[in-house]
Amino acid sequence: MLTPKFDNLVKQLQVLPGVGNKTAQRMALHLLNQKRPQGMALAQALDVAMEGIIECERCHSFSDDDICPICADPRRDDSVLCVVETASDVMALEQTAGYRGRYFVLGGHLSPLDGVSADDLNIDQLVRRLKAEPVEELMLATSTTVEGQTTAHFIKDAVQNHVDTITQMAQGIPMGGELGYLDSMTLAQAIRRRSQL
Amino acid sequence: MLTPKFDNLVKQLQVLPGVGNKTAQRMALHLLNQKRPQGMALAQALDVAMEGIIECERCHSFSDDDICPICADPRRDDSVLCVVETASDVMALEQTAGYRGRYFVLGGHLSPLDGVSADDLNIDQLVRRLKAEPVEELMLATSTTVEGQTTAHFIKDAVQNHVDTITQMAQGIPMGGELGYLDSMTLAQAIRRRSQL
Repeated sequence: MLTPKFDNLVKQLQVLPGVGNKTAQRMALHLLNQKRPQGMALAQALDVAMEGIIECERCHSFSDDDICPICADPRRDDSVLCVVETASDVMALEQTAGYRGRYFVLGGHLSPLDGVSADDLNIDQLVRRLKAEPVEELMLATSTTVEGQTTAHFIKDAVQNHVDTITQMAQGIPMGGELGYLDSMTLAQAIRRRSQL
Repeated sequence: MLTPKFDNLVKQLQVLPGVGNKTAQRMALHLLNQKRPQGMALAQALDVAMEGIIECERCHSFSDDDICPICADPRRDDSVLCVVETASDVMALEQTAGYRGRYFVLGGHLSPLDGVSADDLNIDQLVRRLKAEPVEELMLATSTTVEGQTTAHFIKDAVQNHVDTITQMAQGIPMGGELGYLDSMTLAQAIRRRSQL
């Protein structure tokens, strides 16, 4: 609308999730009017991240180097391995600061409808890793969707000869959850898995 | 949280207006997981825009070159000059496709409280331009705030010897405006400036 360089910036900003034309215009004007050095720093950070962030050879999460900071950390507990679908799940679990074991990222979940089979996930690598480096506990933390739970059962079958204890994260009512707003599947699970107070 | 490169990208994304930590994380993951080439293109567009977009020598709007596309367009009407506060105002007016004259960007409005005096705006340049290239009509399109209207009156005093007709955009009820939701200042203006139907 104003100049070709401006129009291109507005167009490219719309690759960001939740950013439409109006928001992109507002972002571009904000940067141009008041934040040019910060805009340059953002360009640089984007470039470095898109080019430089690779997959960790051990856990398949995001990493700057061949081995990610979590896999490289000698203070983590080698006896527990948590299996998640994506690197964002690693990030969510790390933010709890409640888990000190290692991670393994599958790269998704089984989904025949989307053409995602076991070969598309890092399941072979997981089995090889458990054979080479046995762990005491494998914690399955795939989504609580049909696909996520199917994936968990598939992995359980594939690895049960190589690990003693296979666990999954607790399912039930979330913190702050009001019963009236929860779906009946969650409530039914919470009743079935009730525990002694 | 994940890697230094990732964390830096999340931090830099927060320079964008309306983007906090959670949204920045979501943006970074989205780009890394699915849109790396587009992320590179965004970095490039940002870089080019921040470095390359300058101020048009004639109208002080944003421009890729010394003279912006609107000032350079021979089909625009030289007899009308519209005075606005910022380049975003130019963009908003251009989107109406209802104005074919030229623009002049002041660079803000008078605001003694924020230390913005007439010397900080492009008012001298406007007077010089009107002396050198007289126009038939000067349309003042500063904001309808106290500061914007003060600025409009200041400009009127400064230029009235150099231009015959000075106009301002109509003030009144916006399209789709319901009377019950409008402030009384707007309604009072709309009554005072009522016109024959």
